[in-house]
Amino acid sequence: MKKRIFGEIKGIFEGDSFDNRIDLSISKVHRPTQAGISGSENEGSDSIVISGGYEDDEDLGNIIIYTGHGGRSNNSKVQVADQTLTRGNKALAISCEKGLPVRVIRGYNKQSKFSPEEGYRYDGLFLVKDYWRDKGKSGYVIWRFRLEKISNKINLLDEVKRNTVSEPVSNYGSTVRQKYFVSRVIRETRIAQYIKELYNDACQVCGIQIKSQVTSYSEAAHIKALGKPHNGPDTKENILCLCPNHHTMFDLGIISIDDNFNILGIDGVILKVHPKHIIDKEFVKYHREHHYKKLS
Amino acid sequence: MKKRIFGEIKGIFEGDSFDNRIDLSISKVHRPTQAGISGSENEGSDSIVISGGYEDDEDLGNIIIYTGHGGRSNNSKVQVADQTLTRGNKALAISCEKGLPVRVIRGYNKQSKFSPEEGYRYDGLFLVKDYWRDKGKSGYVIWRFRLEKISNKINLLDEVKRNTVSEPVSNYGSTVRQKYFVSRVIRETRIAQYIKELYNDACQVCGIQIKSQVTSYSEAAHIKALGKPHNGPDTKENILCLCPNHHTMFDLGIISIDDNFNILGIDGVILKVHPKHIIDKEFVKYHREHHYKKLS
Repeated sequence: MKKRIFGEIKGIFEGDSFDNRIDLSISKVHRPTQAGISGSENEGSDSIVISGGYEDDEDLGNIIIYTGHGGRSNNSKVQVADQTLTRGNKALAISCEKGLPVRVIRGYNKQSKFSPEEGYRYDGLFLVKDYWRDKGKSGYVIWRFRLEKISNKINLLDEVKRNTVSEPVSNYGSTVRQKYFVSRVIRETRIAQYIKELYNDACQVCGIQIKSQVTSYSEAAHIKALGKPHNGPDTKENILCLCPNHHTMFDLGIISIDDNFNILGIDGVILKVHPKHIIDKEFVKYHREHHYKKLS
Repeated sequence: MKKRIFGEIKGIFEGDSFDNRIDLSISKVHRPTQAGISGSENEGSDSIVISGGYEDDEDLGNIIIYTGHGGRSNNSKVQVADQTLTRGNKALAISCEKGLPVRVIRGYNKQSKFSPEEGYRYDGLFLVKDYWRDKGKSGYVIWRFRLEKISNKINLLDEVKRNTVSEPVSNYGSTVRQKYFVSRVIRETRIAQYIKELYNDACQVCGIQIKSQVTSYSEAAHIKALGKPHNGPDTKENILCLCPNHHTMFDLGIISIDDNFNILGIDGVILKVHPKHIIDKEFVKYHREHHYKKLS
């Protein structure tokens, strides 16, 4: 088994064309030669191919409403049964909740103005911003996914110095983060994903683990903030795994941490720290002195 | 006392010039004729003027690191004492936590390439994305604010039909929402602000009210999601006041609501509903049928 690659494939650029599914597979852009969704029920989905012109798909260019798989007859693309949140559908749901980037490949399809003239074209990275159950045109249950293109235009992190990081290696380029008004899905860096996995998504302040039907959810909080003028690094030593409430409270300086990892702002609570997670006390001190509001 | 206007002023457009502070004041773009920060300790700040070339300001164009007021001698712009999180500084902090848009006016200043050649220029709406305590160049405590321009370029809500709303009247245009990697500050619509105020920022699921040093924090959750293909409206009947954790759980379909306002997904909990808040059960049904994941 080859390791699943999330994000850009080295040497492949947006707009690159491929004659057929075999070429796509060899290039690693989309491994399966038949399935439209590449992914697993544990790791999430790393790429999809849009080519079928499925009756419920809607391709709006930078926004794609993608229909899951299953429940179709072998010979046609028409629904004949309900879809379930399993296999590729579950993989896409995990990519949504974990903020994993999904490579989108469009195949020739005379019904879509966004499809290539022939063959297949790699059209860049998207985030699954939302997913939901719906009734398809045939009356059966379908699972739908809203994919949004990760913008190259505005990258607030242009200003963040890309710090030298040895492990784990980032395998998906720059660290664009966005928020869609419907959900709080953001794209996390590989480092952030690593810390969240280390804690199994349990909050380091309260221990809460938000469990969904497909995976669990937490947020990566940078202790010394990224961006000007703080310029904190995107490294393990500068990241905490927090629930949304404690992330908010940390960012707003309602809580902070002392040098013994006591939580300031909540009496008698100590930050839970995994033995493999070395937190840099310089960053903690920076947060305390600059962001913790009670000092004043 | 005239009502404080947050957001755009009718008839005034980005790039409009003003000869002096009196004209600025009459136009309502920036009411005070002396102070750099317009705002109050209860409502937040609605506008600032950047003109002083204060020693700790940094104008990067679409990002401004703005220094608070206080602690300066009358005759110079040099710090002679610590600043406190009061008056205009507190107002800007509230605008940060509430996601209120701040009008930015730049005055002539030979040290900044972003300043106008003469007089004053209205440069559009910004969000205060972060604020923190720092040591200024003079060694005294200063309060700093990171302002980011609200982008006109990418407006995901272009697709959202602007629904006819009678009350409360939106006084700040379109509903751009963004997320900066450091904070979860987003721009809320006037309607969303209204609902959050109605509940005094207490979560309708768990009752938690996240209190900061300057105000309290909650999030507005749309029951039937905005945007394609859901096209839920931005109206009171479609908005809940939630803490970040329950907002996340609601958006991910971990929890939902039945027709008697019992919370689905958490046993024995009923949604707290203010008598003035009429929730449309059609939207609740939509969320339950489309987003609540346990059905499957």
